[in-house]
Amino acid sequence: MKKKSKKERQKELLEMLEKDCFYTDEELASYFEVSIQTIRLDRLQLGIPELRERVKNLAESNLDKVKTIKGKEILGELITLEVGSLGISILETTEDMTYSKTNIIKGHYIFAQAESLAMAVIDAPVVLMGVANIKNIDPVRPNDRLIAKAEVVRVRNKKHYVHVKINNKNHMQVFRGKFIFDEIS
Amino acid sequence: MKKKSKKERQKELLEMLEKDCFYTDEELASYFEVSIQTIRLDRLQLGIPELRERVKNLAESNLDKVKTIKGKEILGELITLEVGSLGISILETTEDMTYSKTNIIKGHYIFAQAESLAMAVIDAPVVLMGVANIKNIDPVRPNDRLIAKAEVVRVRNKKHYVHVKINNKNHMQVFRGKFIFDEIS
Repeated sequence: MKKKSKKERQKELLEMLEKDCFYTDEELASYFEVSIQTIRLDRLQLGIPELRERVKNLAESNLDKVKTIKGKEILGELITLEVGSLGISILETTEDMTYSKTNIIKGHYIFAQAESLAMAVIDAPVVLMGVANIKNIDPVRPNDRLIAKAEVVRVRNKKHYVHVKINNKNHMQVFRGKFIFDEIS
Repeated sequence: MKKKSKKERQKELLEMLEKDCFYTDEELASYFEVSIQTIRLDRLQLGIPELRERVKNLAESNLDKVKTIKGKEILGELITLEVGSLGISILETTEDMTYSKTNIIKGHYIFAQAESLAMAVIDAPVVLMGVANIKNIDPVRPNDRLIAKAEVVRVRNKKHYVHVKINNKNHMQVFRGKFIFDEIS
């Protein structure tokens, strides 16, 4: 297959990042069969910031929508938020989140990402987490990227049922949890 | 009833604190019907440090017993530890642990106290938290004292079942959780 021209590549790159802003430069370089440096130049010419910056920009635009808590109290960057329905956040794991004996991320960091995202999606002024049933499917290591998705599955009698799934950067599910929040006044 | 002599009071005070080191100066003053200042002087003469110091001393003597994690990774002061069976920890809640909108302690701090204590009681070199079913019974406020008790209820097929209950300083249960940890190698 003939290699794409620079113009074709840049057009396609722009389209790809508009659909999904989470491609890394490495992934794009591999896809287009060019060097990472070429992708960086493409981004520069197209005025597309680096992944970390793109994620941060997205997150900031979502924080204002949160009702139940202050946006900055969410652990992770808030990527998508449809209050009352759906939320997505990203957490980059680091060495200082681990149990030092195992080098595995402490369960309460993952729990905190899930719980705070679940709170953020709820369409109510004030809620309290009542019940959580959670499962850690695979150990999480440092330098991973956790993508959490929270969905409101039911609201009844001032109780909000929220399901949260967390995948790692290899798209493997590492956590799932069911939460019930109570509206309080 | 005749008020106890200083000698009688100090003898009884010493016995009380040997049985249960968690009495506050306020509680002791109220019990003996003397001023808090008198209790402080009694402690000074008897060489008994203040409550916070007593708790810290107890905790340090327990940390060395922990197998699964480093002692300092436990959230709260480890008051009692019988590895493979029972653990008790105390966490003083502070303003900076709260969701600012509600002034309620974030669920993941309570979860972290419970999870790290549950890990500490397990008699195995390395474990991973697999499943947790938890319930927050009452909102926890800052400036409270959370007393968590973890009990190993069963060990089977390298799975460790641990129940954790947390009471506040008024002896009301605020949290309970059931955890299953898997031994990993």
